[in-house]
Amino acid sequence: MNNSFLQHTSSSPTWIWYPGDFEIVLSNKMQNRRTERSTFFPVFWKMDSHYVLMDFHKTFDVPAPETVDIYVEGEYNVKIDGKAFEGSPKQITVPAGKHKINIKVFNQANVPAIFVKGKTIVSDASWLVTFEDKEWIDETGKTSDISATKWVNAGSWNFNSPTQLPSQFMLPAREQSAVSTEKGTNSMLVDFGKETFGFIKLHGLKGEGKLSVYYGESKEEALSAEHCEALDRVDVDNAAAIDLTMKLSKAYRFVNVQYDAGVSLDAVSMLYEYADVKQRGSFTCSDAEINKIYDVAKYTFELNTREFFIDGIKRDRWIWSGDAYQSYLMNYYLYFDNETVKRTTYALRGKDPVTGHINTIMDYTFFWFLGIYDYYLYTGDTNFIAQNYDRMKTLMDYVLARRNKDGLMEWMAGDWIFIDWAAGLSKKGEVSFEQLLFARSLETMALCATIANDKEAVTQYNILAADMRTKLFDIYWNDEKQALVHSRVDGKQTENVTRYANMFSIFFDYFNPQQKQQVKASVLLNDNIQKITTPYMRFYELEALCALGEQDYVLQEMKDYWGGMLQLGATSFWEEYDPAKQGAAHYAMYGREFGKSLCHAWGASPLYLLGKYYLGVQPTAPGYEKYIIEPNLGGLQWMQGKVPTPNGDIEVYMSESEIKITGACGTGILKFKSKSMPTTVDGNFTDKGNGNYELVIERGKEYDVKYN
Amino acid sequence: MNNSFLQHTSSSPTWIWYPGDFEIVLSNKMQNRRTERSTFFPVFWKMDSHYVLMDFHKTFDVPAPETVDIYVEGEYNVKIDGKAFEGSPKQITVPAGKHKINIKVFNQANVPAIFVKGKTIVSDASWLVTFEDKEWIDETGKTSDISATKWVNAGSWNFNSPTQLPSQFMLPAREQSAVSTEKGTNSMLVDFGKETFGFIKLHGLKGEGKLSVYYGESKEEALSAEHCEALDRVDVDNAAAIDLTMKLSKAYRFVNVQYDAGVSLDAVSMLYEYADVKQRGSFTCSDAEINKIYDVAKYTFELNTREFFIDGIKRDRWIWSGDAYQSYLMNYYLYFDNETVKRTTYALRGKDPVTGHINTIMDYTFFWFLGIYDYYLYTGDTNFIAQNYDRMKTLMDYVLARRNKDGLMEWMAGDWIFIDWAAGLSKKGEVSFEQLLFARSLETMALCATIANDKEAVTQYNILAADMRTKLFDIYWNDEKQALVHSRVDGKQTENVTRYANMFSIFFDYFNPQQKQQVKASVLLNDNIQKITTPYMRFYELEALCALGEQDYVLQEMKDYWGGMLQLGATSFWEEYDPAKQGAAHYAMYGREFGKSLCHAWGASPLYLLGKYYLGVQPTAPGYEKYIIEPNLGGLQWMQGKVPTPNGDIEVYMSESEIKITGACGTGILKFKSKSMPTTVDGNFTDKGNGNYELVIERGKEYDVKYN
Repeated sequence: MNNSFLQHTSSSPTWIWYPGDFEIVLSNKMQNRRTERSTFFPVFWKMDSHYVLMDFHKTFDVPAPETVDIYVEGEYNVKIDGKAFEGSPKQITVPAGKHKINIKVFNQANVPAIFVKGKTIVSDASWLVTFEDKEWIDETGKTSDISATKWVNAGSWNFNSPTQLPSQFMLPAREQSAVSTEKGTNSMLVDFGKETFGFIKLHGLKGEGKLSVYYGESKEEALSAEHCEALDRVDVDNAAAIDLTMKLSKAYRFVNVQYDAGVSLDAVSMLYEYADVKQRGSFTCSDAEINKIYDVAKYTFELNTREFFIDGIKRDRWIWSGDAYQSYLMNYYLYFDNETVKRTTYALRGKDPVTGHINTIMDYTFFWFLGIYDYYLYTGDTNFIAQNYDRMKTLMDYVLARRNKDGLMEWMAGDWIFIDWAAGLSKKGEVSFEQLLFARSLETMALCATIANDKEAVTQYNILAADMRTKLFDIYWNDEKQALVHSRVDGKQTENVTRYANMFSIFFDYFNPQQKQQVKASVLLNDNIQKITTPYMRFYELEALCALGEQDYVLQEMKDYWGGMLQLGATSFWEEYDPAKQGAAHYAMYGREFGKSLCHAWGASPLYLLGKYYLGVQPTAPGYEKYIIEPNLGGLQWMQGKVPTPNGDIEVYMSESEIKITGACGTGILKFKSKSMPTTVDGNFTDKGNGNYELVIERGKEYDVKYN
Repeated sequence: MNNSFLQHTSSSPTWIWYPGDFEIVLSNKMQNRRTERSTFFPVFWKMDSHYVLMDFHKTFDVPAPETVDIYVEGEYNVKIDGKAFEGSPKQITVPAGKHKINIKVFNQANVPAIFVKGKTIVSDASWLVTFEDKEWIDETGKTSDISATKWVNAGSWNFNSPTQLPSQFMLPAREQSAVSTEKGTNSMLVDFGKETFGFIKLHGLKGEGKLSVYYGESKEEALSAEHCEALDRVDVDNAAAIDLTMKLSKAYRFVNVQYDAGVSLDAVSMLYEYADVKQRGSFTCSDAEINKIYDVAKYTFELNTREFFIDGIKRDRWIWSGDAYQSYLMNYYLYFDNETVKRTTYALRGKDPVTGHINTIMDYTFFWFLGIYDYYLYTGDTNFIAQNYDRMKTLMDYVLARRNKDGLMEWMAGDWIFIDWAAGLSKKGEVSFEQLLFARSLETMALCATIANDKEAVTQYNILAADMRTKLFDIYWNDEKQALVHSRVDGKQTENVTRYANMFSIFFDYFNPQQKQQVKASVLLNDNIQKITTPYMRFYELEALCALGEQDYVLQEMKDYWGGMLQLGATSFWEEYDPAKQGAAHYAMYGREFGKSLCHAWGASPLYLLGKYYLGVQPTAPGYEKYIIEPNLGGLQWMQGKVPTPNGDIEVYMSESEIKITGACGTGILKFKSKSMPTTVDGNFTDKGNGNYELVIERGKEYDVKYN
């Protein structure tokens, strides 16, 4: 098993906490920064919090007496071999030999966290933590050895110095200037040239009176003091000029600053706030428009990758499970940043008891499970599965308790069945798409139960999963329609066929090859089936077509759809795009003039499609121990790029006559077609017949293949 | 139903919060003030916290437009009829008519709380609150009316002004002087004359060097710098003299202050910290020693009644369910302070999920249920039952899931079976005492399910309770021993008989009259059965004897046991008292020289016994709608006192020839014996035969009975 995700060795100390606690509290902070026209706009589901009392421990074998510095967020005590030091010591001396160190911390306001730094005694993810460390006291007053405490490995990130307190974490920010400023009488319209995010800074502000900042993703929005989604109000009362930075970061390209006659202002700039993640994946090709689409997708994704993977930077700024699920997939082809995936997964899940679906949405609960399935496949990180397994189980218990009498998932009070923003989409009865996601979630549980060594559960989940797979086809497959129908109402198939369950059944491999071809014609390429208008579901639709080898078609779709937004001047991709709309009508949504997000994570899906289905790289065993490269030009003359893995990047170049590969971790199989026997100096082909060839790609090696 | 527990009318605003949240967070603060020789000493079970995001709402019918002031602990928004005001307004104007006000609050560090003050729009316990207010958004973006949100009535206490922030709550404190001070070279031994609690204040402290404060409930403890349980260290560095108050309140009678030669100190005083509750019950009689016992019990209880009912003020300062249960009972005869009972009940229960027994102790989980049974009986407060019912149910679910194959409660990993501090007490197999408490807890659930209108559950709990009652006798009753045996191990009754299950079965009325008499002889008055040495179980032993009419015997026992402590100079009653011990050996416990608490709530039980079994007042229907007065002199020449009820105090005077009663709320029955027909001008007797008489006591009326 690949262990590259373990970031700290025993010699480098880092701040540690109960896994998920830092993440949940940080998500509370982040999500509560949403405002609507300056009014605080929190989530409408249960927000969880950290455990306020925490015990940390680890046993060390110390070669020589050592001095250990202790830094703590909270009130605390320190014990060595069960005996407490007086007070709350900042430094202790530990004698040579085997010793157990316990630090118990209480913190009501912030996450209990410790940083311990000695020569060998250092805090890292190998420490164990518990929020209910039971100590057993018998009638003689002695603490007995019987313990029923549940210990788990500590959580950590990259707080590697004692002064870098987890509770003080903020994203970095850098100064950024406006591209142009239109000054009016008592107003200023500022353009930052493209969609951006951060804190507006007012320079040389002085005088007395009111000032308003109206934010716009479009110029129209910034100019609409009445209808713009975000604004700030400032009471100015400065005899001498000052520079004032707004308290909350916001999303915009334009800002429209308006102020009373008594106020004067020199200029407006901003602090660009960003997540410090590294771009490892890349893609360039012979088509300039596709290159532009890739770059704007990359920037869209950069903006939406913050403390967590969020849905869109302007309006919600929340973590939505269905949106995050797509971000995870894009992440595997751009950043391969495990920390943001884990953090988002913890934040979405919150804590027990489960009192509702994730984000209140049934499908979003299932996408949470699917995200873990993919995380494991791409990273091979069994530690996280083990750490998170209990939360998976209790969430699945919640789901299982909500099945109807036929064992299917149907709307119950408290549920929101989302699927997609699409006019007239029925949520009545038992919807096929929900059953499909449920089946896949059960498969995920069976997989993770295996990793967590919960043997009884493996059997149980496998039986449940197989049963759901069977039911999916028994109940929804319609031979005449050659498709899964949308739903069953009162025990009867409805007439409606939608794309959702059908396209997922393709890349989940739930259909047999014949069904796949049937569905391609009867659903995917059938204009009579209701069209998808959100990039959210376009993601899966195009993935299904790619999985069927329709890269040429999909490339054209990408150029039409994403290229369409670019032609309208988009500098980031949108929440929804309907080519039929005109002008500022594109900006409306949810019944509001500027309700639509013009920078939505789910708009960045070309990152994923180009990496997975054009460069053609995907893991087939956890953590890229095994993977395939099946490059497909889809009509391009050439393309090249990198796909990150847990250990290094896989590099792919392909033209109409040459394929060049550099392997990274694990063992890959290059799959390609050639009219005649290809040539290479680097390895041996396997001829799979019908012009299909395979080449084994070994760790770190370079290959150059000539084909035709 | 009696509603006197509703403290606020619609015209008086008060701070409100989610019920239990203020209480849980306050208990975290209080319990984490425990130190052991200056080292932070937190609880060893899960500590819960508040919900960080809260929605408050109420619909008002406003006669005329009104201005409403809004005070909030946390970030917030305000909506009227679903429409938000811009920003976080401190004042709003509400037009005439019917309007729904929502205030949504986020607070990570403290409990979200609001105080709203208009003419008719005011915050009080009639507001509804939720931590998961689901709003329903359909595909058109409109919020629909379908809501699956669970709303409960807000929690509140007595924070009746906008500046009295719940998060800033502290108990009041007043200056108190020492009774005597022995000054030495660089030391001072200060005596406060009796057990006390509060913050030590050092007067005229100056110079440079170290100072230590050693606290002692006894002089011996204060003088033992090595073994005293509590101490403070101060680094003195003051050129000019200052007065310094210690940060943490502590329990002591004596303090021993020792300091370096460079330090000087003028005097030591203290701030006495106390709960602001009113003593309503009283008892005086012809026996001076009993009067002294009552007064010291009252003071012991006063000291242990703090933010919550705690076990003892020196060492734990924690809330222990078994200890609190007795405090509730004493409270009904002294303070009748419902708020402290509710607060303690919330704090003990914490939040879901249940991950262990209350205080980790199986019996303490059951005492929590029993406390609610009694609370309802004494107060008639159905609101609290309704508000708390879900937490009762999930805790009972936890218990039910831990039954063994025979449906009995047996030790499982994580459980502590306490029963009592008693040498060699077996916890093996299935202990009868636990099954008895389990049966009573199930009866409590059936009662509360009735109040909460959870019909299905009523049936279920009644069946389970009846089954446990049957099992208790089938499994543990031994005809030969004429008693319930202590336990069953491997399916067989053990030979051991202990007092616990037997004495509880008397005052729970689980025994028939014949069994009661058998058990009185075979167990209660049988010196071969292991004796009880803690006031904790003495409480129930003496209650059982009183319930059997043995007031004369119990009075003597009280004089021996509590009088025994007084003779040793006790100024408050102890955690444990063994008359056989000598001198400072009385102070030792848990293997520590001064481990014993000399001021333990469970030492105050005469408050309860004298009120319930001598004055003889007890409710027989919820909230004293019906009650009995069955006064019993127990050998005294006369006694008089008051017993508080939800509406006024019942006054009782009794001599060997006269009984005087003043009724309070509800309808009482005075029961007494007289050799010949008693006389009264106030009412009509019922002659019950054999010299037994009854007189109906009406609300607020006075009665004077002559009897012989």
